Amino acid sequence: MSDVAKLAGVSIKTVSRVVNDEPAVHPETAERVIAAIEQLGFRRNVGARNLRRGSSTGTVGLIVEDVGNPFYSELNRAVERVAAAFGRQVLTGSSDENRDRERELALEFCARRVDGILIVPAGMRHGYLVPEMRAGTPMVFIDRPAGDIVADTVLVDNIGGTVAAVTHLASFGHRRIAFLADSPDIFTAAERLRGFREGCARAGIPFDERLVIMGTPTERDVAAAAHIVLRHGATAVVAGNNRVTVHLLRALATAESPRPALVGFDDFELADLLDPPVSVIAHDVSALGEAAAELLFARVQGDQSTPRKVVLPVRLVPRGSGEVPPRD
Amino acid sequence: MSDVAKLAGVSIKTVSRVVNDEPAVHPETAERVIAAIEQLGFRRNVGARNLRRGSSTGTVGLIVEDVGNPFYSELNRAVERVAAAFGRQVLTGSSDENRDRERELALEFCARRVDGILIVPAGMRHGYLVPEMRAGTPMVFIDRPAGDIVADTVLVDNIGGTVAAVTHLASFGHRRIAFLADSPDIFTAAERLRGFREGCARAGIPFDERLVIMGTPTERDVAAAAHIVLRHGATAVVAGNNRVTVHLLRALATAESPRPALVGFDDFELADLLDPPVSVIAHDVSALGEAAAELLFARVQGDQSTPRKVVLPVRLVPRGSGEVPPRD
Repeated sequence: MSDVAKLAGVSIKTVSRVVNDEPAVHPETAERVIAAIEQLGFRRNVGARNLRRGSSTGTVGLIVEDVGNPFYSELNRAVERVAAAFGRQVLTGSSDENRDRERELALEFCARRVDGILIVPAGMRHGYLVPEMRAGTPMVFIDRPAGDIVADTVLVDNIGGTVAAVTHLASFGHRRIAFLADSPDIFTAAERLRGFREGCARAGIPFDERLVIMGTPTERDVAAAAHIVLRHGATAVVAGNNRVTVHLLRALATAESPRPALVGFDDFELADLLDPPVSVIAHDVSALGEAAAELLFARVQGDQSTPRKVVLPVRLVPRGSGEVPPRD
Repeated sequence: MSDVAKLAGVSIKTVSRVVNDEPAVHPETAERVIAAIEQLGFRRNVGARNLRRGSSTGTVGLIVEDVGNPFYSELNRAVERVAAAFGRQVLTGSSDENRDRERELALEFCARRVDGILIVPAGMRHGYLVPEMRAGTPMVFIDRPAGDIVADTVLVDNIGGTVAAVTHLASFGHRRIAFLADSPDIFTAAERLRGFREGCARAGIPFDERLVIMGTPTERDVAAAAHIVLRHGATAVVAGNNRVTVHLLRALATAESPRPALVGFDDFELADLLDPPVSVIAHDVSALGEAAAELLFARVQGDQSTPRKVVLPVRLVPRGSGEVPPRD
């Protein structure tokens, strides 16, 4: 209390009056006391937590890029399942692929004293989390690693997946294979590009920059990109994630050019019921969420071992769209 | 502070020491003080809020049935969009269609002093929210009304939608129309059943109980239900929500019987790219989330008018699956 009083420039008695909602405090003074309490709030909370070993606020935070993307909603669901087994609730938020929003959300969760945070990072700078981690809030990074700190991370085999996609398409005779993906600023997109290059090299296909288009996958941009790579003679496409695949399917449905062979990274609902059914590089999104959540709860329960990096396998699921020879 | 001291049975000085994390407090005493602070916590918070009109914790809570269901992830996204415009973050959680979990989540959000709560209710008892609403946390119910209290609610026209679906199918000559939907305990399912009955009555089709199967839409149960209604001669199906539709499509893809005509409630991604493209009763999920969030923020900003009930329109989107005459 004394530091609140000091910061607000009032007596301890006044602080006590405000906190207990007693009358006879001038509104402006009350405002000042509240502000001081809020400013000192987090330190007090940490102090309280340190006093009570094994205590819990009953919640963990989950930060994803976009809660509206089915990939993340499946991840969210898996995290909730594990959290429920540990008696925790999950607070979620979308970073919108914006590092400032990611930071806001993470610090908001910390201020709310979640027991730990699972984060699909938007940015590459995570030094801001170090004080929180030291204060005892464990963090686990999902799908993408932390930028500049050492932390627990659960990834999928992005490189292996795109190598497999290119190898598969090449085995059906494709030599003009395009790669449409999210911005290379995003870890998974950059890794998948590496896998794409590696796959081309292994198949003896020269890498052609004109067949690689990367950027935020809006419906319009993916349609435009498809148009461009088809004009440059692509007979097959590797789609870098589920958003690209879905937008691409819609673009191809109305396009006049012959349909290229297609393998998409990420499985998605109804892929098997489309015509042709869509071949994908599948990974178990639930397993990703579960592995990350289990790692987090091990930390919450006191696991102090060195940070771990878990890489989950992917597998090619041939359904039809990728098992066709080049047209023309 | 004095009430904390009283409850913990210690001096105000001791409370001050614990709060400021000073040494020389016996751990058990500290525990007792922390417990007292937590017990009194919510009241203090409300007191603090009342002192500061227009203050904010910067967050709103959103409770849905299942964050993993694309319908709710789209809703979530829309709520986030409006919240961002008002400078708020969204904390979300899944009730899992369980009223105890709904209650836990709602009270957890209140304890965390969210500025308001948007809730797709699981249960029909919401008296537990009244003290929170009186204490100044506005609540808006989405997609289903509150069970036993008067509160702001945003719904879609469930009855009008299924009436339209049945009328549409009947206009192509169908007389054996099945209705597969979620459990009638769920408001939307019960309303849609009403619409289904009404649609049959208007089309002069006798209502046949054997063609109506309702329950939690797991993939297996929907497949079994489809088998049953087809055996009873259904030539058309109205699917009660997006989960039922998707499971039904998968069941029909492998079934040997001729495909029934189909209209599904709720639009869903890729419906237009399936073969045949799926006709749906579409409503704007984003509009639902936005309308609810806008109503909530009006309340947060002091709107004290009587609670409103908003019903958003639906529309039939004919794409192919519903525009076929009966087979046989």
